[in-house]
Amino acid sequence: MKEFVLLFQSKDQKGIVALISDFIFKNGGNILSADQHSTDPQNGQFFMRVEFTVEDSVDADKLDADFTAVEQHFDAEAVVYLKNRRARMGICVSRPDHCLADILYLWRSGELKVDIPFVVSNCEEHRRLVEQHGLPFHFIPATKEERHEERLLSLVKDSDFLVLARYMLVLSNEFLMQYGKDIINIHHGFLPSFKGPDPHRQALEQGVKVIGSTAHFVNDRLDEGPIITQAVEQVSHRDDLAGLIRKGKNLEKRALSEALSKYLDCRVVKDGNKTIVF
Amino acid sequence: MKEFVLLFQSKDQKGIVALISDFIFKNGGNILSADQHSTDPQNGQFFMRVEFTVEDSVDADKLDADFTAVEQHFDAEAVVYLKNRRARMGICVSRPDHCLADILYLWRSGELKVDIPFVVSNCEEHRRLVEQHGLPFHFIPATKEERHEERLLSLVKDSDFLVLARYMLVLSNEFLMQYGKDIINIHHGFLPSFKGPDPHRQALEQGVKVIGSTAHFVNDRLDEGPIITQAVEQVSHRDDLAGLIRKGKNLEKRALSEALSKYLDCRVVKDGNKTIVF
Amino acid sequence: MKEFVLLFQSKDQKGIVALISDFIFKNGGNILSADQHSTDPQNGQFFMRVEFTVEDSVDADKLDADFTAVEQHFDAEAVVYLKNRRARMGICVSRPDHCLADILYLWRSGELKVDIPFVVSNCEEHRRLVEQHGLPFHFIPATKEERHEERLLSLVKDSDFLVLARYMLVLSNEFLMQYGKDIINIHHGFLPSFKGPDPHRQALEQGVKVIGSTAHFVNDRLDEGPIITQAVEQVSHRDDLAGLIRKGKNLEKRALSEALSKYLDCRVVKDGNKTIVF
Amino acid sequence: MKEFVLLFQSKDQKGIVALISDFIFKNGGNILSADQHSTDPQNGQFFMRVEFTVEDSVDADKLDADFTAVEQHFDAEAVVYLKNRRARMGICVSRPDHCLADILYLWRSGELKVDIPFVVSNCEEHRRLVEQHGLPFHFIPATKEERHEERLLSLVKDSDFLVLARYMLVLSNEFLMQYGKDIINIHHGFLPSFKGPDPHRQALEQGVKVIGSTAHFVNDRLDEGPIITQAVEQVSHRDDLAGLIRKGKNLEKRALSEALSKYLDCRVVKDGNKTIVF
Repeated sequence: MKEFVLLFQSKDQKGIVALISDFIFKNGGNILSADQHSTDPQNGQFFMRVEFTVEDSVDADKLDADFTAVEQHFDAEAVVYLKNRRARMGICVSRPDHCLADILYLWRSGELKVDIPFVVSNCEEHRRLVEQHGLPFHFIPATKEERHEERLLSLVKDSDFLVLARYMLVLSNEFLMQYGKDIINIHHGFLPSFKGPDPHRQALEQGVKVIGSTAHFVNDRLDEGPIITQAVEQVSHRDDLAGLIRKGKNLEKRALSEALSKYLDCRVVKDGNKTIVF
Repeated sequence: MKEFVLLFQSKDQKGIVALISDFIFKNGGNILSADQHSTDPQNGQFFMRVEFTVEDSVDADKLDADFTAVEQHFDAEAVVYLKNRRARMGICVSRPDHCLADILYLWRSGELKVDIPFVVSNCEEHRRLVEQHGLPFHFIPATKEERHEERLLSLVKDSDFLVLARYMLVLSNEFLMQYGKDIINIHHGFLPSFKGPDPHRQALEQGVKVIGSTAHFVNDRLDEGPIITQAVEQVSHRDDLAGLIRKGKNLEKRALSEALSKYLDCRVVKDGNKTIVF
Repeated sequence: MKEFVLLFQSKDQKGIVALISDFIFKNGGNILSADQHSTDPQNGQFFMRVEFTVEDSVDADKLDADFTAVEQHFDAEAVVYLKNRRARMGICVSRPDHCLADILYLWRSGELKVDIPFVVSNCEEHRRLVEQHGLPFHFIPATKEERHEERLLSLVKDSDFLVLARYMLVLSNEFLMQYGKDIINIHHGFLPSFKGPDPHRQALEQGVKVIGSTAHFVNDRLDEGPIITQAVEQVSHRDDLAGLIRKGKNLEKRALSEALSKYLDCRVVKDGNKTIVF
Repeated sequence: MKEFVLLFQSKDQKGIVALISDFIFKNGGNILSADQHSTDPQNGQFFMRVEFTVEDSVDADKLDADFTAVEQHFDAEAVVYLKNRRARMGICVSRPDHCLADILYLWRSGELKVDIPFVVSNCEEHRRLVEQHGLPFHFIPATKEERHEERLLSLVKDSDFLVLARYMLVLSNEFLMQYGKDIINIHHGFLPSFKGPDPHRQALEQGVKVIGSTAHFVNDRLDEGPIITQAVEQVSHRDDLAGLIRKGKNLEKRALSEALSKYLDCRVVKDGNKTIVF
């Protein structure tokens, strides 16, 4: 059996679920799970994710092509993924390496089902960790003054999406447009509070009693892209800056690994500046 | 428009979602949301919950009758509820009244969309609170020695389901069979640990660092019925018995009110000794 | 035995704990618990809370007077409270009454050890709930245009501190100065995000995956006073505005009741725009 | 300046805090923080942890010796630790390596301030990971049938305490007695529920809605030693066994790393079958 995931979105209208499930049934498929979301019963947008199996003999390309009729009928956007495909995930990282180490462990242990074509960093010290995992490491000496975005771009093109696993340089809008694919960032603060640098210091100065971490898609506004996951933890007056940073690192690992896991399962759909995480 | 909720379960097989959604579509309905769960792709049990609207002109009884064909085709059990129906929820309570007060507040504020035909207690002191809410209060002086189950039974028959909002007497199997409808209990411990009386003392003596509370269906084994919701909180050596009880009360309110809210939304389905909470 | 709580703060310096504990020992007292906090070992501020018992025969006023020598030695501020004193807590509330109902329940059940001299509201509908608890209710028809702060002030003077249990009008700086005592507010959002009105709508529009609620002292900047407690909960794209508000109400009850409980135990100390919660 | 941590316990009695803080003051020390706990004001046990600094010129051994007078006065047990000492932590691990990888990362990044004299495993595959960190790896082919406890014992003697980072073999009472030092285990279930093997399967079969993980000291009863930390997370009917295991791994990393961090800070004190975690 082959397993597929269908992601579908269109204006909300009657009969979508019926037609899609009928299409799958008629192609000999079996629905394993289905989720939908309607932003508003009147005039809203409709989102659907379906996992289904079909016999191995079914031609995936033909299936995809046949589905075009359904898609056009509802004026929808839809994508069908082979469930066991392995996406190519590029990693960018600056000095803090806790998220990098966590991702590499999850990759090696088979928990993150993904290929990693490269790790790129402006911090040469990470070479050893990356190469010990048998992965290509690229050092690009990017700084705020000289970002080397062209070198970066020519490297990262060879990926299906990027993870900024604590990459401290802001990517230019031009870079974002030329790359043109998803970029997932981990921000070490509880957005929309504490944008920009040094969110733990901001949290300390505000005297908050809960800190957080946010995994989100990158868009052209700093730390304002659609949020995928957020992890939070209680803190108290006993937590100094070092304590907040230590707790924060755990939150970053949790928020980012959960976001990647959902994303790789085709469970994350952008809806304007928000996300649906099925 | 009328809104309905369909709860459906059968052996897992191909085409269920297609046939159900097609049925709704052909009756002019619109699916607002749908959830399914399959316990096992091979030979498992399939569960589905669908919220849908149809025109007011559609006859609900006819709809229900027509659906019988779908049901029989899959050898399924199914129920269709009018979404805005108001179930009749009876409440049994002993001395601790924090869950009672919470439920009555949520009922009065319209958050729990339910009718309360009676509150019954072996503690006369609750009369005032209940009658201030304009609800009938019944005092039955049940004790471990004399449970007065016949009186209780003749009273509670007039309800769609029962809530034991900290009712300290164990109901006999005969009572359960004769009542024959759902009974939801709140247990003040984190099941399956700490069954039976005085779970906070048990927790204290074991030196646990997290305590919990469990809302579950009552069955014929004490504190072993299917779990609906569990709420938990960190504790430390600073929490003495009174502190555990105080924190525990909050957990009981949270677990029970969430369980009731899900149950009244027709989101809770029993699956053997477990539940599916859509 | 009498139980006391000492709250002490001064510039950090050697020997504070020694001198204070020696003072208690020499007065025949027994320390039940002690907490300290130092904002910075060098040149920081030192805070201490001590619970201790002394024989009933000890004169509390004399104890207090004698302690003045210790206080002056360290150029400190200190207060000694009788642990079982009952503070007079005034309550101000607008239309949403979930926090009011929760506080009244906790008061009646003896969990909040406090006297409530009055509940004041610009919403006449709450009279019944308040008077059913045997408490004085005052209706002041305050609006954004006509705040009736003088009437409010003459009423609330008769309290040791105020709770704004969802009071929707901003109190003027003049009012704050004239009242001159602590005011605790519950804000229905996760500060410092989402200040001002309609924080749940702001949260919905930002697409956050965690919402919160914040209990804080009121100062002269809107929603920026020192934070006492924050409660948080996961949300998803399934939570619409009504869902966020419903979850938010639970968070407000949790954050406010915990803040009041800590405050009444003399565990909350202001440290600039932050708090220490022992 | 030298920093010390004092851990003190005795029968509760008057004047302990006074005498200890006076002792520190008279030796020119400054208390950075102090915590106490009294299990019961009457006839209870008293526990205290004090962090303090003294001038470098102070002789630590003399300090320790002088403190003996205080200790004897209260018939107490006390230990003084140099705060920056590096304990020698041995690691035992079977096949699952997520806790091992997490601990090694935290050690290398300097977050766990500890020396690791060896990692011992009955799983040769971990050699590479351990040796990449520059640490000695020992393979002992222990099985349920042949535990090789003598070999293990002669190896682990060279450590201040042991961590069982998912070590699947039960250590015999004789081993425990001969080793005679602390052993910290991570159990992949929420104790006291789900003792013994396969706790995730037990949790799945019970249909719990929250799973947990427990770090505890090992004693002579399986999975019943004093609990140090517990981490918990919500689950639902959607989580199958693989999902529970995946979430559980995160909980194990969190509970164990927090327990180790507290233990290395001298914040964990055994109190019979419970712990105090300052």
